[in-house]
Amino acid sequence: MGHDRVREALRVRQGLDPATKPTKVFSDKPDDLPVGPRSKSNAAKQLVSTGQKLDALQETLYAGASHRVLLVLQGMDTSGKGGTIRHACGLVNPQGLHIHSFKKPTRAELRHDFLWRVRRALPGPGMIGVFDRSHYEDVLVARVDELVPEDVWRERYNQINAFEAELTASGTAVVKCFLHISPEEQLNRLAARLQRPEKTWKYNPGDLDARAKWDDYQKAYAEALVRTDSDAAPWYVVPSDHKWYRNWAVSEILLETLQDLDLSYPEPDFDVAAELARLRS
Amino acid sequence: MGHDRVREALRVRQGLDPATKPTKVFSDKPDDLPVGPRSKSNAAKQLVSTGQKLDALQETLYAGASHRVLLVLQGMDTSGKGGTIRHACGLVNPQGLHIHSFKKPTRAELRHDFLWRVRRALPGPGMIGVFDRSHYEDVLVARVDELVPEDVWRERYNQINAFEAELTASGTAVVKCFLHISPEEQLNRLAARLQRPEKTWKYNPGDLDARAKWDDYQKAYAEALVRTDSDAAPWYVVPSDHKWYRNWAVSEILLETLQDLDLSYPEPDFDVAAELARLRS
Repeated sequence: MGHDRVREALRVRQGLDPATKPTKVFSDKPDDLPVGPRSKSNAAKQLVSTGQKLDALQETLYAGASHRVLLVLQGMDTSGKGGTIRHACGLVNPQGLHIHSFKKPTRAELRHDFLWRVRRALPGPGMIGVFDRSHYEDVLVARVDELVPEDVWRERYNQINAFEAELTASGTAVVKCFLHISPEEQLNRLAARLQRPEKTWKYNPGDLDARAKWDDYQKAYAEALVRTDSDAAPWYVVPSDHKWYRNWAVSEILLETLQDLDLSYPEPDFDVAAELARLRS
Repeated sequence: MGHDRVREALRVRQGLDPATKPTKVFSDKPDDLPVGPRSKSNAAKQLVSTGQKLDALQETLYAGASHRVLLVLQGMDTSGKGGTIRHACGLVNPQGLHIHSFKKPTRAELRHDFLWRVRRALPGPGMIGVFDRSHYEDVLVARVDELVPEDVWRERYNQINAFEAELTASGTAVVKCFLHISPEEQLNRLAARLQRPEKTWKYNPGDLDARAKWDDYQKAYAEALVRTDSDAAPWYVVPSDHKWYRNWAVSEILLETLQDLDLSYPEPDFDVAAELARLRS
């Protein structure tokens, strides 16, 4: 251990009652800088050096092909799940990334258990899997929009905990980040999407329907985070009104997670000297 | 068109008889610099500016979600398929990349037609698919190691051409790069893998068996390239003894391919002004 400075600072507050108010769960404001750099330029410098370390560790992870990492990104529309993948996850060799975006379930997916499509999208050995949205939608939008009865989504907390415990037991480091933005910042970002033609494709009129239910979503997020946080599969609350801070924070969380795995290159299962001689003959 | 400077220079020589000697097909030597930068430092500078253009075009490709790109990378062991993915393909948002490595077929895969597993690995709309090895192994190792009778692998040229014609007809730009290295450079790279502990995991004693059949492989590559080159799904021969040249060349080929697609952002299918008003209310 010992690689836990940023993770400790951003870990969702533990021991909270699940019925507690969202403000207690998200105790830092979306524009706070609770740990790390105070300025964009300092964050950019740190991102470069973190990137080099991440890149080296990811190659060791890939070479060993025993551990797996799963980074779950959740957040309201415009919170920057895509931007985080581009700028934080993009620091490593793309060949070692397994990125999966979860959209509204298809009719075929809905006929299965909610974890069915999630299991199919898990990273292979040696890979860093990244989920852009995830099985958490099944306790978020499913709750807010009453897509299933309360007893069904409420039981999913247990199902998710069991699922994630199974993942960690089989060698997957599970890391979950809630990208925390303010409604004011979301307004700015949605407006920017509408005002800049090269961004308009990202806008969906349905985004405003979700925005209208802001408080319901905060409540659903707060309870989900409290109920599914564990030392094995922890939740981090990443203040995300500043994109540079969000990118820096997620890259550090990923780095600390990889450092904790104590990765090393596999021992060759052949005689290196004999192979060198054979090569040169 | 007009975006074809590098592609024209590196395109496999057309109109060659399939029975022609490999040296005619690979008319440039693996350490030639037939087009573009003469030095590593110039190539690095160009790679940065090409990366910015690629990144912007890839976002437009992704936003439009109509075209697809498929980049096929083939080459002898150590020719740098992985390095190309890291340094050339890594210039774009990893979320827009769909990378697939083809290993020795599993028993289940072998029970299907050779293109079965390939179809399953094709990129979705708006994506850049990258194949690290591909269906071409089925006319390369399958031929050299006599895994199937000659009439079977020979018929595969037609099957591959029909398959790729189908892909291009449905809006996929198919680009195929042969990473051309010399046996001397392969020797150096294999030795480096054995001498540097952090590289040894990449070494496989079977690599030397393929190396022992160098001329057979060159012959198989030469005929495959000549028989499956077409304007719709062209082959490029990328001199790859210099890693910096290989990365530069593949990034340029990818850029010229994307430029040719005449991509643009999709028109919004909603009233932008009305949405802005709704957002602000």
